[in-house]
Amino acid sequence: MNNLTPLEPKADKATVRRHNLSLVLRAVHDAGEATRAGVATHVGLTRAAVSSLVEQLLEYGVVSEWGKTSSGQAGRPGTVLKVSRSGPAGLGVEINIDYIAVCVVDLAGTDRVRLVEHVDNRGVEPSEVLARAARLAARAIGSAADQELEPAGVHVALPGLVTGGTVRQAPNLGWRRVAVEGLFAQALLALRPDHRPLPVSSDNEANAAALAELWFGAGTEGVRSFLYLTGEIGVGGALVLGGELLRGAHGFAGEIGHTVVDPEGPRCRCGAHGCLEQYAGQAALLTAAGIDADAGARGVAELERRARQGDPSALSAVERAGRQLGVVLSGAVNLFDPEAVMLGGVYRELMDWLAPAVDRELARRVVSGLWSEDGKRLRAASPLGDAARGAAGAIVREVLADPTAYAERDAG
Amino acid sequence: MNNLTPLEPKADKATVRRHNLSLVLRAVHDAGEATRAGVATHVGLTRAAVSSLVEQLLEYGVVSEWGKTSSGQAGRPGTVLKVSRSGPAGLGVEINIDYIAVCVVDLAGTDRVRLVEHVDNRGVEPSEVLARAARLAARAIGSAADQELEPAGVHVALPGLVTGGTVRQAPNLGWRRVAVEGLFAQALLALRPDHRPLPVSSDNEANAAALAELWFGAGTEGVRSFLYLTGEIGVGGALVLGGELLRGAHGFAGEIGHTVVDPEGPRCRCGAHGCLEQYAGQAALLTAAGIDADAGARGVAELERRARQGDPSALSAVERAGRQLGVVLSGAVNLFDPEAVMLGGVYRELMDWLAPAVDRELARRVVSGLWSEDGKRLRAASPLGDAARGAAGAIVREVLADPTAYAERDAG
Repeated sequence: MNNLTPLEPKADKATVRRHNLSLVLRAVHDAGEATRAGVATHVGLTRAAVSSLVEQLLEYGVVSEWGKTSSGQAGRPGTVLKVSRSGPAGLGVEINIDYIAVCVVDLAGTDRVRLVEHVDNRGVEPSEVLARAARLAARAIGSAADQELEPAGVHVALPGLVTGGTVRQAPNLGWRRVAVEGLFAQALLALRPDHRPLPVSSDNEANAAALAELWFGAGTEGVRSFLYLTGEIGVGGALVLGGELLRGAHGFAGEIGHTVVDPEGPRCRCGAHGCLEQYAGQAALLTAAGIDADAGARGVAELERRARQGDPSALSAVERAGRQLGVVLSGAVNLFDPEAVMLGGVYRELMDWLAPAVDRELARRVVSGLWSEDGKRLRAASPLGDAARGAAGAIVREVLADPTAYAERDAG
Repeated sequence: MNNLTPLEPKADKATVRRHNLSLVLRAVHDAGEATRAGVATHVGLTRAAVSSLVEQLLEYGVVSEWGKTSSGQAGRPGTVLKVSRSGPAGLGVEINIDYIAVCVVDLAGTDRVRLVEHVDNRGVEPSEVLARAARLAARAIGSAADQELEPAGVHVALPGLVTGGTVRQAPNLGWRRVAVEGLFAQALLALRPDHRPLPVSSDNEANAAALAELWFGAGTEGVRSFLYLTGEIGVGGALVLGGELLRGAHGFAGEIGHTVVDPEGPRCRCGAHGCLEQYAGQAALLTAAGIDADAGARGVAELERRARQGDPSALSAVERAGRQLGVVLSGAVNLFDPEAVMLGGVYRELMDWLAPAVDRELARRVVSGLWSEDGKRLRAASPLGDAARGAAGAIVREVLADPTAYAERDAG
């Protein structure tokens, strides 16, 4: 049922204008390019209203004019509008167990800067890890400035339970109750004392990666409901439903890595026993293939190389992990009934050898019978570091949702 | 992000009036009783507009006047409005494996008729089962008429994958591709040849039971996100998130009964191996306690009696099922992060002995640490047959959402 809101809201003029500025900006964004007349038709406002709104958006620097439409198109030629390729941008930071990735995305959603640093963050003080991440972010801000881009904010993604600016716990990092937003803002300010502080927000990294998938990947091809699984040191997950990330009652949804495979199984970093991570996480995969579990990205590359060469122990390690993933995923698919399952992180690299085993279990165990072994519903997702892209996207979405707030802050 | 809808919709007058009729009706419904002035304040329409809308609702027979407010209340005394206790009602039918339940609910949400027939529906032709259900429904319609209630429609809930008026499959009934809505409508028409045919709709029974919980149970106490699990011959499930039932991309969400406990376990009716149903379904519970698995409701009563007397094999059977439920539920809670888990069906009767084991696993395995062993988040849910109540509620919701459609159909 709908909310108890009458159909004629008595919103004040400033609120209506603010809302309509976003409406027009998003129409231009979603269309890629548009004329004022085209936008007016699309959003259902008058041509005059749209023109006035566009003037304001040009002033904010979030929309640019790009010459006239060709006479070949219907109607009078109009000035082409696009979202700006310079000016406001999103800055995303992904802090993971064995790497940090930073990404700057412009309003059109294009990656403009991307930096990845492989570094083991385990057993390192949170403040030191965050200082490291801030250094990488500061370099990205510099590269963005060279391209006339200025981040409107920074969004930090981490592998743990994140709520209210704090990591409640991140078992694989060994963090508990770390005020990441405050510490990161502090570290960035120390590096850039003469600059205005950037607003800092934060989220779980699998959430950010799933949003990257929605905004820049499968979602743009019309997949609106999917389960996202990322294999790294931990196994992260996220659920997107009808184009919205499912956050849960306390913001902790998506923790598929701690689904029980065997209640009597090996102890997990979370404190319980037999979690999926212990069977299909990066370390378990490497160990099963006879590769040093701590070898990180090199180890995964080695596993991929061996699998490609047909090494039996590598193939059986991947196949076994695929079977466990398939069993757990079938439960999640039965519960959630998504259109697709996306495998990211190291699973992406191992897809050729992993997918058949996963598909087999899904085909066998999904009760709707919609998951046959043709593999159409199982897809490779974001490469390593795409949580940073999703994090940057979150900032871009904020600007698109309320360009006035951005302009006011920028002028302040 | 919001949809691309401008803040000033240009809806035509009839659409606005239709919407506002529902708005006023729901305001009266939600308040229990209200005056015209109170409704006007609540929904943000003028007193005159509300009065005109109320006149229409009185004419439709969905609202009644109940004398004046006492002078003790603030403001001038006004006429008290309530939703009608006679007139339109919802008729819900639950067809389960070993019983059929029928329920008539009035607009205020009160059960006015409730009939349950214990009968084994396994191995019986679907058309025969539906004819049986139609006979029970016809009796309920008769009892409702004695109370001046007339069902506005009938909603049929079944233990299987239900979509587009058809049961895609119901493993425990042994049904595949049964056009339930058509067959039920036909059977009911055959019993009442001189009456206008009732519109028939259908859903999964766990969905209907979860909606009953939302509309008439925990939801009314402010629990808006919960996982609902019902133990019967099968184990059904449903997810309510932020006050909305999660249906999934194809309408098949919630099938928690087929979560894998042991991939090499006993074969399930769904065709896979080691599903939760085979460990914590009614038959598994009874067998483990040394009671005839086919004893149905009598068997469950016997199990409850033995558990109450401290019979060791009964207690250990329930405890073992509780442990398996807890392991599977911890995975679901990690994925969805609900506020609460509701256990319905036979689990409700066995709660005293089941809950400690379930709680223990949840406390051990939910990574957020929010599920301690105090049991506050684990609750007993709807008793047997409440899917029928939820199904009836679905019809009531339809009337509340669009009283004009009901009145037009009633007049037609």
